[in-house]
Amino acid sequence: MTARAESTHPPAERQVGASARVGIVGGGQLARMTHQAAISLGVEVVVLAADPSDAVFGACPNVMLGAPDDLEALRGLALGCDVITFDHEGVPGECIEALEFEGFIVRPGSAAKRAAQDKLHARRLLGSLGFPVPDFEAVGSVGEAHACGERWGWPIMLKARRGGYDGRGVVKVSEEQLESAMATLTGAWIAERHVPIERELSQIVVRAAAGEQVCYPLIETVQQDGICVETRAPAQVGEAVSRRCVELAGELAGAIGATGVIAVELFMSADDEILVNELALRPHNSGHLTIEGCETSQFENHLRAVLGWPLGSTAMRAPAAAMRNVIGAGEGPGPSRRLAEALAVEGAHPHLYGKSPHSGRKLAHATALGSSAEHAAQRARRCAELLEGGEATA
Amino acid sequence: MTARAESTHPPAERQVGASARVGIVGGGQLARMTHQAAISLGVEVVVLAADPSDAVFGACPNVMLGAPDDLEALRGLALGCDVITFDHEGVPGECIEALEFEGFIVRPGSAAKRAAQDKLHARRLLGSLGFPVPDFEAVGSVGEAHACGERWGWPIMLKARRGGYDGRGVVKVSEEQLESAMATLTGAWIAERHVPIERELSQIVVRAAAGEQVCYPLIETVQQDGICVETRAPAQVGEAVSRRCVELAGELAGAIGATGVIAVELFMSADDEILVNELALRPHNSGHLTIEGCETSQFENHLRAVLGWPLGSTAMRAPAAAMRNVIGAGEGPGPSRRLAEALAVEGAHPHLYGKSPHSGRKLAHATALGSSAEHAAQRARRCAELLEGGEATA
Repeated sequence: MTARAESTHPPAERQVGASARVGIVGGGQLARMTHQAAISLGVEVVVLAADPSDAVFGACPNVMLGAPDDLEALRGLALGCDVITFDHEGVPGECIEALEFEGFIVRPGSAAKRAAQDKLHARRLLGSLGFPVPDFEAVGSVGEAHACGERWGWPIMLKARRGGYDGRGVVKVSEEQLESAMATLTGAWIAERHVPIERELSQIVVRAAAGEQVCYPLIETVQQDGICVETRAPAQVGEAVSRRCVELAGELAGAIGATGVIAVELFMSADDEILVNELALRPHNSGHLTIEGCETSQFENHLRAVLGWPLGSTAMRAPAAAMRNVIGAGEGPGPSRRLAEALAVEGAHPHLYGKSPHSGRKLAHATALGSSAEHAAQRARRCAELLEGGEATA
Repeated sequence: MTARAESTHPPAERQVGASARVGIVGGGQLARMTHQAAISLGVEVVVLAADPSDAVFGACPNVMLGAPDDLEALRGLALGCDVITFDHEGVPGECIEALEFEGFIVRPGSAAKRAAQDKLHARRLLGSLGFPVPDFEAVGSVGEAHACGERWGWPIMLKARRGGYDGRGVVKVSEEQLESAMATLTGAWIAERHVPIERELSQIVVRAAAGEQVCYPLIETVQQDGICVETRAPAQVGEAVSRRCVELAGELAGAIGATGVIAVELFMSADDEILVNELALRPHNSGHLTIEGCETSQFENHLRAVLGWPLGSTAMRAPAAAMRNVIGAGEGPGPSRRLAEALAVEGAHPHLYGKSPHSGRKLAHATALGSSAEHAAQRARRCAELLEGGEATA
């Protein structure tokens, strides 16, 4: 299999031809769906999950309980695995570095991973590499943030340097709101120019350890309150924009040297300017539609990449695909209750995560293929509404 | 969920909206792939596996060790499951009847299952229902078998009433071979007229508990030494033959009242006559190509059927699909060794079963889609040859 750096903790002796073993830090739906893809490849997935209610329980037989910042737990996972990868961005950089120092293979590695963990580092790195990013600045006081607003115009965006996701850690503030908003913030923040956005896009690229790359079709994402609620592929943008996104994501993946799935979240302005918003160095919510929509899913391609195997075709299997997230609303009955009805929606494929329902928690998603993005989106939406427990639209 | 007959062993109390739980007797690759499909539906699969080397270990977290003819083990599986179904035909009829008598829901039920377990019963039942089957007779002595040969012409087929699969339990004998062949046989056998076969076909139908049915495209199967080595869909037969197979399988599924996947193995003669060979009341090797080839796989549709949920579309996702089995040759290195090369075969999808390699054991399969059945078959074959450890054809 993959070559191994000098190691103080060699993986346990295994038979020649034995199946590969991939350790995943984090037990959410991404780990669950990666295990599902791994079954076909005969790859054993071992998961370090932080909570017994995580999505991976019930789906995967090899799960260890432990925190993602517990180096002993991470070592326990790494021992006997061929490679370690991630379900989220929550593993401290110093832990990843420690594993690497001890000779374990971690993909993506610490240097690349940091670009998905620290917004200030990412903005600086991307800017220095010549990639287009919104204006930004590290801010430690109301005065510093106010100066940004005066320079760029109001409102401005305030973003947590670390740990934000699904709308958490991002606020848009007017000049009037600034002081009260900053009073509630903890940790380090950056201020960012508020960019009028025409569309939000996601360009997923997969990069193999040896540098081979494949790009998925450009995906359009629809957000509500900062949470992705719907995605569609291929994005309805001009050929030039589409080409630009592929080029940009491909260069970026190479520049940061990441291995595995790299999801590049992009802003498109009204005049077709493309700015890099965020990076995720792991399978990404916007790529769930690749399970049915593409010849090789993002989950299988992530496994292939981190194991040093050839990447699979990302060609679409239908003219269009769409995905709708199913998000918990209070302590409802969960997506199982109306699953039978959801299964009757033509062309829709429900994916349940086996999680207990909580408000705002992603519990499931529905994908549909169709003759157009709108056609696929209608089907996915109908299915997702039933899974959320509401009435389906006609 | 599904209604439950009067039961002396009600399933454990569960939350409203909790996920459905399906018990599978048998831990082979069919159970493995059914669990893989169940992950998307949020369905919990619990497996009763006879051997710690079974394919389901490493893929599914809920596995109990126990023999399929151990009623206590079967009860242990059934308790807490909403429905019991099967990975093979090896559960004794009296055990299935006992579970039913105790109020557990078993799908398919004992009456239907017998048609897949006992060749003499199946032939008589199908004959009495007016379905075309080859001439047959129960034989207990060389004299009785000889009389069949005299009546039908030589050679004749001898088939074990129970337990035969993958070429085991089936012999073709000439008049000269008869006496020595019969001397080695144990158990009950039937003699069958040897039918010159133009093609072997498989018509897979899925029948819901309420009677709803869907048919997959007709599949052509290629056998070597009685083992299925390759399948292709849609079968290259005339429209009339194709229609006849769908009608026949549909009527048959209804007549025996089975729930779940029903694979009807068919013989087609040179003059397009169709005879029923075997039934399998479970997901079937010939249907593995439905994972990539059809909108809903046989595994997902089996789960939907036994849970009383709407069945999914069986429409093909490409003009043609083909599957090639990977069969062990001695104590070789197993299909993992050259997996990376197999993954590089364009359009091919390897499925490894995680089993230790033994001669004659099905270890994996490769599916490919293509513009024609031959195109798809070439890709699948190239991938399977690599998984078998040999050189791939150009």
